[in-house]
Amino acid sequence: MEQTKQEYLAPSEVKELDIVNTYELEMLAGEVVPQGGYDYISGGSGDEYTLRQNVESFNHKGILPRVLADVEHPDTQTSILGHDITAPFIMAPIAAHGLAHQTKEAGTAKGVSEFGTIMSISAYSGAKFEEIEEGLNGSPRWFQIYMSKDDELNKAIVDEAKADGATAIILTADSTLSGNREKDMRNKFVYPFGMPIVSRYLTGSGEKMSLNNIYAQSKQKISPKDVEFLTDYSGLPVFVKGIQSPEDALLAIGAGAAGIWVSNHGGRQLDGAPGSFDTLERISEAVQGRVPIVFDSGIRRGEHIFKALASGADVVAIGRPALYGLALGGWKGVKSVFDYFHTDLKRVMQLAGTQTVEDIKHTKLFDQK
Amino acid sequence: MEQTKQEYLAPSEVKELDIVNTYELEMLAGEVVPQGGYDYISGGSGDEYTLRQNVESFNHKGILPRVLADVEHPDTQTSILGHDITAPFIMAPIAAHGLAHQTKEAGTAKGVSEFGTIMSISAYSGAKFEEIEEGLNGSPRWFQIYMSKDDELNKAIVDEAKADGATAIILTADSTLSGNREKDMRNKFVYPFGMPIVSRYLTGSGEKMSLNNIYAQSKQKISPKDVEFLTDYSGLPVFVKGIQSPEDALLAIGAGAAGIWVSNHGGRQLDGAPGSFDTLERISEAVQGRVPIVFDSGIRRGEHIFKALASGADVVAIGRPALYGLALGGWKGVKSVFDYFHTDLKRVMQLAGTQTVEDIKHTKLFDQK
Amino acid sequence: MEQTKQEYLAPSEVKELDIVNTYELEMLAGEVVPQGGYDYISGGSGDEYTLRQNVESFNHKGILPRVLADVEHPDTQTSILGHDITAPFIMAPIAAHGLAHQTKEAGTAKGVSEFGTIMSISAYSGAKFEEIEEGLNGSPRWFQIYMSKDDELNKAIVDEAKADGATAIILTADSTLSGNREKDMRNKFVYPFGMPIVSRYLTGSGEKMSLNNIYAQSKQKISPKDVEFLTDYSGLPVFVKGIQSPEDALLAIGAGAAGIWVSNHGGRQLDGAPGSFDTLERISEAVQGRVPIVFDSGIRRGEHIFKALASGADVVAIGRPALYGLALGGWKGVKSVFDYFHTDLKRVMQLAGTQTVEDIKHTKLFDQK
Amino acid sequence: MEQTKQEYLAPSEVKELDIVNTYELEMLAGEVVPQGGYDYISGGSGDEYTLRQNVESFNHKGILPRVLADVEHPDTQTSILGHDITAPFIMAPIAAHGLAHQTKEAGTAKGVSEFGTIMSISAYSGAKFEEIEEGLNGSPRWFQIYMSKDDELNKAIVDEAKADGATAIILTADSTLSGNREKDMRNKFVYPFGMPIVSRYLTGSGEKMSLNNIYAQSKQKISPKDVEFLTDYSGLPVFVKGIQSPEDALLAIGAGAAGIWVSNHGGRQLDGAPGSFDTLERISEAVQGRVPIVFDSGIRRGEHIFKALASGADVVAIGRPALYGLALGGWKGVKSVFDYFHTDLKRVMQLAGTQTVEDIKHTKLFDQK
Repeated sequence: MEQTKQEYLAPSEVKELDIVNTYELEMLAGEVVPQGGYDYISGGSGDEYTLRQNVESFNHKGILPRVLADVEHPDTQTSILGHDITAPFIMAPIAAHGLAHQTKEAGTAKGVSEFGTIMSISAYSGAKFEEIEEGLNGSPRWFQIYMSKDDELNKAIVDEAKADGATAIILTADSTLSGNREKDMRNKFVYPFGMPIVSRYLTGSGEKMSLNNIYAQSKQKISPKDVEFLTDYSGLPVFVKGIQSPEDALLAIGAGAAGIWVSNHGGRQLDGAPGSFDTLERISEAVQGRVPIVFDSGIRRGEHIFKALASGADVVAIGRPALYGLALGGWKGVKSVFDYFHTDLKRVMQLAGTQTVEDIKHTKLFDQK
Repeated sequence: MEQTKQEYLAPSEVKELDIVNTYELEMLAGEVVPQGGYDYISGGSGDEYTLRQNVESFNHKGILPRVLADVEHPDTQTSILGHDITAPFIMAPIAAHGLAHQTKEAGTAKGVSEFGTIMSISAYSGAKFEEIEEGLNGSPRWFQIYMSKDDELNKAIVDEAKADGATAIILTADSTLSGNREKDMRNKFVYPFGMPIVSRYLTGSGEKMSLNNIYAQSKQKISPKDVEFLTDYSGLPVFVKGIQSPEDALLAIGAGAAGIWVSNHGGRQLDGAPGSFDTLERISEAVQGRVPIVFDSGIRRGEHIFKALASGADVVAIGRPALYGLALGGWKGVKSVFDYFHTDLKRVMQLAGTQTVEDIKHTKLFDQK
Repeated sequence: MEQTKQEYLAPSEVKELDIVNTYELEMLAGEVVPQGGYDYISGGSGDEYTLRQNVESFNHKGILPRVLADVEHPDTQTSILGHDITAPFIMAPIAAHGLAHQTKEAGTAKGVSEFGTIMSISAYSGAKFEEIEEGLNGSPRWFQIYMSKDDELNKAIVDEAKADGATAIILTADSTLSGNREKDMRNKFVYPFGMPIVSRYLTGSGEKMSLNNIYAQSKQKISPKDVEFLTDYSGLPVFVKGIQSPEDALLAIGAGAAGIWVSNHGGRQLDGAPGSFDTLERISEAVQGRVPIVFDSGIRRGEHIFKALASGADVVAIGRPALYGLALGGWKGVKSVFDYFHTDLKRVMQLAGTQTVEDIKHTKLFDQK
Repeated sequence: MEQTKQEYLAPSEVKELDIVNTYELEMLAGEVVPQGGYDYISGGSGDEYTLRQNVESFNHKGILPRVLADVEHPDTQTSILGHDITAPFIMAPIAAHGLAHQTKEAGTAKGVSEFGTIMSISAYSGAKFEEIEEGLNGSPRWFQIYMSKDDELNKAIVDEAKADGATAIILTADSTLSGNREKDMRNKFVYPFGMPIVSRYLTGSGEKMSLNNIYAQSKQKISPKDVEFLTDYSGLPVFVKGIQSPEDALLAIGAGAAGIWVSNHGGRQLDGAPGSFDTLERISEAVQGRVPIVFDSGIRRGEHIFKALASGADVVAIGRPALYGLALGGWKGVKSVFDYFHTDLKRVMQLAGTQTVEDIKHTKLFDQK
């Protein structure tokens, strides 16, 4: 569908999805989401080398099935920061769900809540906290922040997130500028609606602004001091998101981070970097269990979740596939995507001979490189 | 050919095949076997990464021809568990031959018997033991079991197999659930006929049931105790099939297994695993000759048989290619496939400078990784 | 566009370019530059294996984003041999700019000068020094020499370059013959205009001569003595260009070279060689900072500049992309290309967490091989 | 062109060729040589994995240009077994040149002789010694033997070759059976003419016989004793051809071989083997200069010759490209091919900084694996 200059018309259908795989979901979403929004969601930066590596790098490690493990009805339940969740995956923070569906973040929130895991609310949400709450209905939520250059405004944003009930802050540190997203450049992509949370520090609402423009108005100089600041001011556990090196993981922990979020922003920021999965094991070795690790970038199958957990992640976060589900079926589509991952992960656990999430974490993968 | 909803019409022609290679055979079979059956037979799980790796991983090792080895008329004969066989390959257990040919397992059995090697009878056979005997005509057969959750029923099945003359039990341990077979999902594949052997523990005959459904009714909690149970109760040697790790091989042997069957179920179960051939050498090193090793998954050429034997297998098992032969030429087609492998293996033995199967086993391959 | 036998008609448009990436620029240039000239510029030698490797080898190393580095407004300024330049990249010496644009080297020079970096003037320039000066307008320039077999003529050429204000000599040592450029052979490519600087030692002006013919008339026996000769006679710093091995780097330095220029001539000379980037780290380790290192061959993105600097280069040189810019937009097109690299490098520096060029040089890359 | 059942009509044109590269030559030859003959010449065995690897494996090593080496007019002359030759490459023994050109081996011989290197005459020549002599005109020739099962006949064949002036015997040891050449099977290829030299031991002249049939009538049990027998009886130096392992090289030398011929028969025998180039270095290390090494299989460019010599070969042998030259231009076409390799090798030597063949042998390649 072409995006008219006048109006951005996101899908509005709400229905359960019959999912064969998430690659197909991406193709199907491309048929209902306007081109500018679809390219924004699905695209990566530069050569999209890192975008592709995010999925391909999972083939660098193989799962050896363990077939005499006495396993039946594997148990996917786990907990993170005190929240019990249905399965070791949560919703990743992702901007502007309204590009995918008219229910915006509220739709995603309801799907996530119905499934029984944690919602991450992006600072670039197109919906307000109270709108999202309609979907969440009391379920746990974490708040992801893109910091303002002005710490007083950051305090106000954190206050608002706390008032909404956020139980953790996710500091996205890898996006102090926009990556080199060529598709957005070709499409001259601008957001078709505003971003109420960060409009506090933007020159406008965010509507008709490009990502370049918006990132430029957020804070560039991110350092361990920002981790300290957020930790101290919020009193909440702070994840640092965008970690790809053991050094940054240690800096973050030193500054008080309560969790490490390994991610390369889905291959949308610095191209020419390794697949996110290829960086996980070394980071986990450096973290040594001091704090929990969330992993994202490239999760498309249950096998990927399994491999990430076996390489040191405590939970993984689902990004694009959930947005494709939202586009195709609103909150029911989001839930279908989470159910798909759940079913697939249980199958992998059974075939790999692992009864619990803890068993996955103790699995040694086969080096296929 | 399309599978009509009313009726599944498998081929019925019986003729010798002029085989150039087994890849071509797969294509030709696709022209005569109804789509649902063909996809069921030829497909793998997930991304079909492991399915492809099963063949490609043979290129990780190269055969260096030995040209001054004084070889002529190489001898392929060997024996396993007391059976003398024409060549170091046997028929793999594979479900539902009736998808490929109207003569079902009886056709395969006759081809295998005429060639002079061992038939593996699957618990998911569409033919009864006595029907298969018509083809086998007294030739050796092993019985592959998918266990029931109820050990009394397992005893009854083992009793029946023993009464039929099985000289070994193959415990398939890698399939306590169905792999993620997307083609079957798209086709909404159900078996067009029943499975008389396991109908003891199914809610029906197996007809019109999906693989998911059938696997779910079999036993999930497979452990070393099942190996002990089958060994003790049957008094027969028990192979554990689906071994991909040294650890499982040792567990199986510890529990009394008389043989290790290295296999990843032809890439149909856990995707994201290495090619089966890539796991063989390490398993063989762990087994240290204590028990024989059967290898399957990916054998398409004589070179592959040679490489598997040089990496620790005692015999290999042929799966899909035999079923393609069955589809295209009934029992004569099956025999043509076994003859093809025989001719090809003899050629490879001559060119590699190996007089006997024992010589192959002492060959050192070239590391091409 | 076809090159007529009568006349070679290069583009003449002057305009700023809206650049998405430099691969696209190459395609667009192919639409305006006559075929013979385009193939000459874009082609490589032999299988073009080395040409392709020049870009692909950058993927052998990955940049790990550093996200807590307290960076803002990264500073690309640096200096080399006493020249302060806007960013760590300069114009590579490249022959016959007149193939790309009617303003020839003068157009390139103006674009380079306006950007604020160093122009390299090729001995195979189609423009005279005084014509180039019109574009340079006093900006720094280095002179690249293909030596004559006659040292007296070499002295005259050096004298002329010094008189023009060259502050360094670049001795191209990797091109004592033409590489095996099959496209030029098929096109029966000859230069459509003369080369005034080296016409001193050619049998003609260079017009209607093939590259094979021209190289054959230059000096083949290049040795450390030539480095000494040029250093002594010119009194200028001498770079040896075409270095791909640590041994040659040390020989050059031993003979008095003031700089090492790592290059494989853009994959146009010896095919079957590694990508130039793959040779850089070992050379840098041998040079140990004794003299500056210039790197070229394969730079197409800011990531590539970053990776080259992190692997030991002090500056990189831009070749083909600048000529595509010249073809498409004259001097403004050249400046657009340099601006593109500048913008892209600043983005990469910010995302990688490096404030200065020195910070880039201290970055450790991730081994992706 | 289709091969009619009645008649095989090989090309007859005699002309110089304007060669851009040898890959193109293969395509052009495919347009003039009847299909059966073309497939026979160009095809490999099995998956043609080894055929492809023969060329691709040269990319496992890279040539680093040495640019300060004081080289001019590199000298390709060398000698082997006392023969001075124009360049370090000779004609490989190859069967049935009459498939490519009506002048058969006499055409090839004249081209080789005019170039100034050694002709290898295959036992499967379609021309008689005296016919080949018309082309050779006194130039050096080696005789390649496929042994009969009857040593008296072998003596007669050796006697005939000696009488013709052969100065060495090449014992092809890798072809005691035909490789699995699927194209020949599909074409039901039979030789369209007889083979006068080996017709001594065939049931017929060779005409209308398949390669399978002919190989089956030659000797299978090749061992070091055959090397001894040929050495003792002929009094000539004996090369053992088809060596791919250090072990066989040492066995051959132990049995009196005067030279090792590293080859995998151009990927026509045992598929699933490494590229011939990948085996060369280890063999050379085992041989330690005791006897000369000839290398073939995959040589298509001057770079390949250079890399083979730098990895231990003394000379290389040219096979298929020479036959394509024969097909396209008779003896002049053969000479054009040798001239092409000569020109290309000289260019590579100049660019790599090597003055002599001995210099090439002392060059260390760059490991690109």
